Amino acid sequence: MSLHLQRDLEKLKKEILKLGTMVESAINNAILALNNREMSYVEEVLKHEDFINEMEVKIEEDCLKILALHQPVAGDLRFIVVSLKVNNDLERMGDFAKNIAKRARELMQEEPIPTLPEFVNELPNLVRTMVRNSLDALVKLDVNLAREVIAMDDKVDEINRAMYDEVTRVATENPAKTGVAISLLSTSRYMERIGDLSTNIAEDVIFMVEGRVIRHAD
Amino acid sequence: MSLHLQRDLEKLKKEILKLGTMVESAINNAILALNNREMSYVEEVLKHEDFINEMEVKIEEDCLKILALHQPVAGDLRFIVVSLKVNNDLERMGDFAKNIAKRARELMQEEPIPTLPEFVNELPNLVRTMVRNSLDALVKLDVNLAREVIAMDDKVDEINRAMYDEVTRVATENPAKTGVAISLLSTSRYMERIGDLSTNIAEDVIFMVEGRVIRHAD
Repeated sequence: MSLHLQRDLEKLKKEILKLGTMVESAINNAILALNNREMSYVEEVLKHEDFINEMEVKIEEDCLKILALHQPVAGDLRFIVVSLKVNNDLERMGDFAKNIAKRARELMQEEPIPTLPEFVNELPNLVRTMVRNSLDALVKLDVNLAREVIAMDDKVDEINRAMYDEVTRVATENPAKTGVAISLLSTSRYMERIGDLSTNIAEDVIFMVEGRVIRHAD
Repeated sequence: MSLHLQRDLEKLKKEILKLGTMVESAINNAILALNNREMSYVEEVLKHEDFINEMEVKIEEDCLKILALHQPVAGDLRFIVVSLKVNNDLERMGDFAKNIAKRARELMQEEPIPTLPEFVNELPNLVRTMVRNSLDALVKLDVNLAREVIAMDDKVDEINRAMYDEVTRVATENPAKTGVAISLLSTSRYMERIGDLSTNIAEDVIFMVEGRVIRHAD
């Protein structure tokens, strides 16, 4: 591998990690906005949205440049293709963080309703761990960590499904709370989608290391 | 451009169109399942899910092979990168079609509730047109058609937002119908996501033709 290519790949890796850190921070702030009912966290998320979008466009351009300039093969080529996908996944996570923050802003205007304890603590913790570990797995090419991320997704799905039942129950017992309950369900769903995207990243790490596609394996 | 590369790119284009046709058909069947309350359409969607997933994996592998073998540059390189993204978008549309079909299956077990006429007719028609036209725009490299797709997305978002209000209203007035109303809202949201993915494809067509990123331009 040429020194130039090596240097450009290192730079690309750093950019993806930088984007990952920004997205992680957006997710953290969105969850804090939701759980603490504080507008400052919502503003924090909205303030960084443009940076995330610009970063995504820049990373895609850089991938194209590396492909055109160095015409990498084998593992390097796989790394670029995975970077393109992870880039996309991270930007979408940023979008979901923004959606959570916007819902949190609406929910602050309303009386809080009781909800599942798993939704308040376990779900956000799981999702944050999945995001963090999928990025760690990517950097360290750690397939075991990637497999742990994939395994966590079942619990996330389970809590999200339980939220459907909970929302239906709350709205049925107290129809005036239907709007609030549906907004809360949306935030649960956005977290579940962030978990899915972390799973995508973990699957791509396994693909990159083992050269084996494990998507759709279930 | 070498004859081999030309031949491989033509083959890739055909494969993407084949996947697109399968996904369009899944979306059509999912909407028929929902509106006609007929299980045969649900089965049709579920039967083709594996083909869609296998096709997606194959197309990604083919893109990697073309990159490694021919090391294309400029427009050809952009076409491959866009193909990777469109491939991903189409597979996700297939997932949403499956989700709509599964909700339709649940909804068949329940008494139907009245809903917005725009949700029954206009939304599915808009979404189907967006999918179809984004693929046409891709094949013909037609940026005007791509721009039309992007413009349609506002109406889709508007109907989906109206569904939130409608569901809140129905559930508030008739709490026993909350579960059904929330399931219906999910199908509206899945259609809205399919519209978003068509918009992604349209934006990538414009990027490919004009070399200009228009994502996040709003």
